[in-house]
Amino acid sequence: MKVINPALKAQQVKDYWNPKIIAQLNGQEVKVARLKGEFVWHSHANEDELFYVLKGELKIELRTETLALSAGEMVVIPRGIEHRPIAENEVEVLLFEPAGTRNTGEVENELTRHQLDSI
Amino acid sequence: MKVINPALKAQQVKDYWNPKIIAQLNGQEVKVARLKGEFVWHSHANEDELFYVLKGELKIELRTETLALSAGEMVVIPRGIEHRPIAENEVEVLLFEPAGTRNTGEVENELTRHQLDSI
Repeated sequence: MKVINPALKAQQVKDYWNPKIIAQLNGQEVKVARLKGEFVWHSHANEDELFYVLKGELKIELRTETLALSAGEMVVIPRGIEHRPIAENEVEVLLFEPAGTRNTGEVENELTRHQLDSI
Repeated sequence: MKVINPALKAQQVKDYWNPKIIAQLNGQEVKVARLKGEFVWHSHANEDELFYVLKGELKIELRTETLALSAGEMVVIPRGIEHRPIAENEVEVLLFEPAGTRNTGEVENELTRHQLDSI
């Protein structure tokens, strides 16, 4: 059993939009990621997704509104809801979602990460 | 979809050792709790439990060692592992575990919370 510091883990991530697994429990995974720029519009058919901002200011565009999250804030994007994360400046984020959730959801493109490393 | 600040939610909790639900996803619950003093030794037969410290210094006694967590640090206690949280001074914590996880695990005593409110 290891004490984990997600913010320090996030700082070890080298590239943007490439989540790393830091813990697993109950079939779920805790991940950290560094974000910069605009991601792709996508949704997850069967997975609710929690974003918790460790550092920076994260916008999450929805079709109906835009959410703005500062460090220490979180939101749950329910399954099936289209969303697009936007980090105007660098953001470090903790993700909580079912094991195997694909980062781009139903979309497959150059941003899709097919296999996530642990860190 | 609401932006949630777990640290602010935790500050709204009035009593110690009484987790409040702040979000639900994928059959799991995100809770916040204020802790002070020593909890009861217990384990959860079927639930892994994540502790993330929002404020203060949390000790978690295991039978084999004692974990020390500062604000911004987390640990996963796997199912079946006996543990006892200790907060020498007040601690605010975020919990992540399956919906319906009982705070005192297999133990039932005056600390057991049979129904958790949302906050």
